[in-house]
Amino acid sequence: MLERLWQLTELQFRPDEQHHHETLFTIGNGYLGTRGAFEEGYPGETPATLVHGIYNHAPDTLVPELVNAPNWLVLKIWVDGTPFGIVQSTENHMRPPQGVIFGYERTLDMRRALLRREALFRAQSGAIVRVQFERFASLADVHVMAQRVRVTAVEGNPTIEVESVIDADVSNQGVRHWRSDATTIADGDTTGVEVTTAQSNYVLGMASRLLCDGAVESIDDERRPASRTRFSLSREQTATLTKLTTVYTSRDVPNSPLEAARAKLDEATELGWDLLFSAHEAEWAEYWDTADIQISGDDEVQRALRFTTYHYLIAAPRFDERVSIGAKTLSGLGYKGHVFWDTELFIVPPLVLSQPQLARNLLMYRYHNLPGARNKARANGYEGAMYPWESTDTGEETTPQWSDPGADGTRIRIWTGDNEQHISTDIAYAVWLYWRWTGDDEFLRRYGAEIILDTAVFWGSRVEKAGDRYEISQQIGPDEYHENVDNSVFVNRMVVWHLETALWLVDYLHQHAPDDARRLVDTLDLTPDRLTHWRDVADKMYIPFDEERQIHVQFPGFFDLEYVPVPDYTPRTTSLHAILGHHRIAQTQVIKQADVVMLMALLGDELGPREVLLNNWHTYYPRTDHGSSLSPAVHAWVAAWLGLTDVAYEMLYHAVHIDLHDNKGNVGQGIHAAACGGVWQAVVFGFCGLQIENGELKTQPNLPKHWTEVSFRVYYQGQLREFTVRNPEAVPLSQ
Amino acid sequence: MLERLWQLTELQFRPDEQHHHETLFTIGNGYLGTRGAFEEGYPGETPATLVHGIYNHAPDTLVPELVNAPNWLVLKIWVDGTPFGIVQSTENHMRPPQGVIFGYERTLDMRRALLRREALFRAQSGAIVRVQFERFASLADVHVMAQRVRVTAVEGNPTIEVESVIDADVSNQGVRHWRSDATTIADGDTTGVEVTTAQSNYVLGMASRLLCDGAVESIDDERRPASRTRFSLSREQTATLTKLTTVYTSRDVPNSPLEAARAKLDEATELGWDLLFSAHEAEWAEYWDTADIQISGDDEVQRALRFTTYHYLIAAPRFDERVSIGAKTLSGLGYKGHVFWDTELFIVPPLVLSQPQLARNLLMYRYHNLPGARNKARANGYEGAMYPWESTDTGEETTPQWSDPGADGTRIRIWTGDNEQHISTDIAYAVWLYWRWTGDDEFLRRYGAEIILDTAVFWGSRVEKAGDRYEISQQIGPDEYHENVDNSVFVNRMVVWHLETALWLVDYLHQHAPDDARRLVDTLDLTPDRLTHWRDVADKMYIPFDEERQIHVQFPGFFDLEYVPVPDYTPRTTSLHAILGHHRIAQTQVIKQADVVMLMALLGDELGPREVLLNNWHTYYPRTDHGSSLSPAVHAWVAAWLGLTDVAYEMLYHAVHIDLHDNKGNVGQGIHAAACGGVWQAVVFGFCGLQIENGELKTQPNLPKHWTEVSFRVYYQGQLREFTVRNPEAVPLSQ
Repeated sequence: MLERLWQLTELQFRPDEQHHHETLFTIGNGYLGTRGAFEEGYPGETPATLVHGIYNHAPDTLVPELVNAPNWLVLKIWVDGTPFGIVQSTENHMRPPQGVIFGYERTLDMRRALLRREALFRAQSGAIVRVQFERFASLADVHVMAQRVRVTAVEGNPTIEVESVIDADVSNQGVRHWRSDATTIADGDTTGVEVTTAQSNYVLGMASRLLCDGAVESIDDERRPASRTRFSLSREQTATLTKLTTVYTSRDVPNSPLEAARAKLDEATELGWDLLFSAHEAEWAEYWDTADIQISGDDEVQRALRFTTYHYLIAAPRFDERVSIGAKTLSGLGYKGHVFWDTELFIVPPLVLSQPQLARNLLMYRYHNLPGARNKARANGYEGAMYPWESTDTGEETTPQWSDPGADGTRIRIWTGDNEQHISTDIAYAVWLYWRWTGDDEFLRRYGAEIILDTAVFWGSRVEKAGDRYEISQQIGPDEYHENVDNSVFVNRMVVWHLETALWLVDYLHQHAPDDARRLVDTLDLTPDRLTHWRDVADKMYIPFDEERQIHVQFPGFFDLEYVPVPDYTPRTTSLHAILGHHRIAQTQVIKQADVVMLMALLGDELGPREVLLNNWHTYYPRTDHGSSLSPAVHAWVAAWLGLTDVAYEMLYHAVHIDLHDNKGNVGQGIHAAACGGVWQAVVFGFCGLQIENGELKTQPNLPKHWTEVSFRVYYQGQLREFTVRNPEAVPLSQ
Repeated sequence: MLERLWQLTELQFRPDEQHHHETLFTIGNGYLGTRGAFEEGYPGETPATLVHGIYNHAPDTLVPELVNAPNWLVLKIWVDGTPFGIVQSTENHMRPPQGVIFGYERTLDMRRALLRREALFRAQSGAIVRVQFERFASLADVHVMAQRVRVTAVEGNPTIEVESVIDADVSNQGVRHWRSDATTIADGDTTGVEVTTAQSNYVLGMASRLLCDGAVESIDDERRPASRTRFSLSREQTATLTKLTTVYTSRDVPNSPLEAARAKLDEATELGWDLLFSAHEAEWAEYWDTADIQISGDDEVQRALRFTTYHYLIAAPRFDERVSIGAKTLSGLGYKGHVFWDTELFIVPPLVLSQPQLARNLLMYRYHNLPGARNKARANGYEGAMYPWESTDTGEETTPQWSDPGADGTRIRIWTGDNEQHISTDIAYAVWLYWRWTGDDEFLRRYGAEIILDTAVFWGSRVEKAGDRYEISQQIGPDEYHENVDNSVFVNRMVVWHLETALWLVDYLHQHAPDDARRLVDTLDLTPDRLTHWRDVADKMYIPFDEERQIHVQFPGFFDLEYVPVPDYTPRTTSLHAILGHHRIAQTQVIKQADVVMLMALLGDELGPREVLLNNWHTYYPRTDHGSSLSPAVHAWVAAWLGLTDVAYEMLYHAVHIDLHDNKGNVGQGIHAAACGGVWQAVVFGFCGLQIENGELKTQPNLPKHWTEVSFRVYYQGQLREFTVRNPEAVPLSQ
């Protein structure tokens, strides 16, 4: 059953996994994402539909957040008057007072981005029906969502009522973002709502139609318009109902999103389920054609890797270059839909290689948000562009300054918005990586160069001269357990990379695009003095290094902190941050996540000789908590690249299951997007060792023993290239 | 990680899966089985240790049951006074009032039959310890069980107290089987109990010793003798404690089992953990050498197949031919430890091919119980040997006549003990299969022939002459939804097989073992008249067959019953018995489990031409509920053999996960033993098509598309033969 390795299946619904699985079973199309809540609802559920770019800042909250859109899923079904639902036990199997289900199955078909669910349900009357739901958010037309429900009478001749609702009475866990004055339509089989965010004034229009054989009447419930139909089934008869929903926002159309949604609804109705689905399926086939990595010899990792790939694909904006992917994709409310470095360093690289257009969209988001970054630089007394640590629609810094209060009421000051400044370099790095792989000169000249150069301008103004060297104080590197440190080796070394790249880029533009070079020199004020200064900084930046141990030092003083033997703290699903406490952990050598190891991932052999890199690994790996979901994949990547295949596989196995296993219990808040992109890089850059060498691609594989073969396709300089990497040491199962 | 496919791992303890996982994580050695309850206990737990053959019939219960032996697992640990336990949440991570765990992992290493568990635990004092448990029931010396616990101080310098207990205050879900007057020993590091079953007078002695560096004192709690030690740990220090437990019963030794256990305990102490474990490991390596089937291309089924194999191996008596394997092995209290046809038709065949000595032990159990079978025949007015449907230590019929009362207080009459008479033929079939594969003439002559022949005598007296044909009325075939039917085709046709085999056997013995032939003719009264009668019955037995449809008819009248379209009732984890109700289901064509399909599995092409067999399949498969766990594996086997590979794989996938997925929610009561043996047969006889043809082995594979290769080893006529079956149609993952 090869198909099985494309499917995520739930054979039993467990209420205590409800939120976790709502996240896993999210569908989406890069325009919106909808969590896998049930059509008929379930106690305690947390349904959410998140549309890219629709943020709002509610009163009494610290920062804006991505707004939960009206719930388009709702389809309520009554069987002889008993409401259909996942009722899993009863004292009376023959006449269950609340109804009861005799079987249940939910499958996410990742190949087709189709969510299916079915259940066998007995009503209080004794009648039994099979109910099958399907849903997808069209990738072929991102404004269209389709649902299909089939009700089959298995026993009895039940009367069925179906109510289709758009529920605009929604909030973000109690925080209300939509004004109360919604416009609603309830017109027979057609319903609609138009709602407006209270602070940001985004308008969202959603229209829906219930297609079925019988008569449909509407119910004009304020904020919950509904269509309702009623019919009888004789035994073995099946009724098929289709619900089509369309959505537009004021980001898409100049006037009345609801009108646009209605027009699109007519168009979608014309096509009907089959044509809509086949177009959707064809688009997904094209996505997977380059996105899928095939691993022979490890079914579990194969399936999990498809799952992680699916999730960044459904979150990647397809036709919109003014939005980006939040840390939790569109699958949950965690981190409020804010965009972090996760996107550029974890998700952009796989997209650069497999779907360059999507990567370009994400980078354009940063281009369009240069004004916000320039504002932040100015506000902090610097030049150039200083990107926000957390970014939304405006491009302004939206990191909250304080955590939510803990159990004892105390709040913790969050410094990342102030001092986690490496984000600007991370973005520059992603631009450079995109250009290096795609050769998209047009993008570089028109947009990318401005990002790389204006963030370089920022760093030129940010660094501090200290004697005959340069330093950078008060930084947060990737290891957020150590805040506001001076001379983070990650930051300092990446700034060197950044300024050197900027200098090279100025030369490159002068040679290949003199007009653009002149324009940028002009607008960004790239004077000869500034360039000389960059050269000087790059040459004289302080790179903390321990000559005796031959290792990079995460920051000066790091090794004076208390040593905590992290491997002793196993098995562990709780972070050491929680175990040791916020204040103590900063006084220890416990590292939250790949920091020097991240530097190795980004710079590879440029960072230093192999012995130093191995020393770094053996120093930092046993000090790392993996308190961030970003960490295991980077460790897998670097370890595989260094030839430490066993530990690399252990890290990969952990990373690829972060969401599926939900070891930390927080997947209910959304998919760990960075881990999804990270495992792709671990496999392709780490285990397969794909790299550019002298303008050509080569692989240098270090595959786990039990992987016999890995195949993947990547774009390089506009050409699609196919790789099959075989493991000379593969051990067949039968030995 | 090939090792991963030998492991069952639990990364999070879920209280609602507690009983299910206690069953999955059972350890055993063919002498006893111990459920995977925790050393320190957990609320609602159902620990059990079941020793083969120790049955007792308690007052006010309908039938005897396998007795829950004293619990040897108990090891309680206090860390700075806080009792160690799987406490999964707290409001205070720094000073948890009840303690808290920060991580948990449990792994059953099936290759080594070793259960490991570890947790990171913080005490109220703030100290953190890592606690690692291991346990195994020695396969090298079945009277020895060993546990090891390692406590490592990760933070703080905690004081640790450990208490080792033998808990003889146990019951079978409230039913008390042991007399209250236990003998106990509490002598420093050594504890012991001797207990006696109230009705059956079995004596069980158990002795235990806690080995550690510090001083150990004993606590002479009546029925719960304990040893206790106390020590301090400094940070990063590990204390290792070993608990050895030994057990004997009055079935093993003539006098004082407790004394035998003490003597064995001294012997085991001498050896210590390392030597005990290496001997155990070596025995398991030998078991797996022939028991393991390797499947390339399907990790999930590979691992699950090891799981099912592990479970019948740990239940198979190794040195005892007077006990057999109950329907739930020794892993739970379901079916009260009673032995059904499950053993002979599902578990014996894999053992015949992979561990013939274990198969022989199981068949000898039936030989020794011939007196009980003769009693049953006589009591029912028949001749020969009529095996009980449910069998225990006595060989008498122990099927309860009534079910437990339902929610409404009604009880249902159970007819299987009266009328599910095919068990006698099933046992004869297993004897014949054993002989056919092993060529063990000595067994056949001395024991097996008597089973086949005396059960034939029974059938000769049981059949009814009706005009010029023979009939058998009031039978229950494998399909227990239709009770007390006349002329079950399964029964009638298997009786023909039985009598023909008996006739052949008499000839064979006359030719090859004339002394044994004479002895049996004499003692079983195999007169020429009787043999003539057998021939006549075999020739004239009524085999219900529909000439028009060219199918075997399950029983005359079957097709007059209400037709229920079973495939409509999907998805379904509830049986149709529960959905339609006990009374109605008998009036429908819904079949509980493989019945005619079972006949096809047993007789193969002997049953009829391929078209008829295919007709049978297409008739009965869509009518089958799989309301018994025995059904899917047989369907997988027959479908694969018929070349219906897709449905065969679907059935196999279902069968091999019956316990792992616990779809029906009853695994807490024990492993579905028959399914475990059934999947082995489905793979080897079905998918690989292994069979004897003209005295030679051949394979005729129909592998699922994604299996590239299957390897296995079987004994044939005393020779170990190795097979690797390749799939010409295998589709590598990368296509």
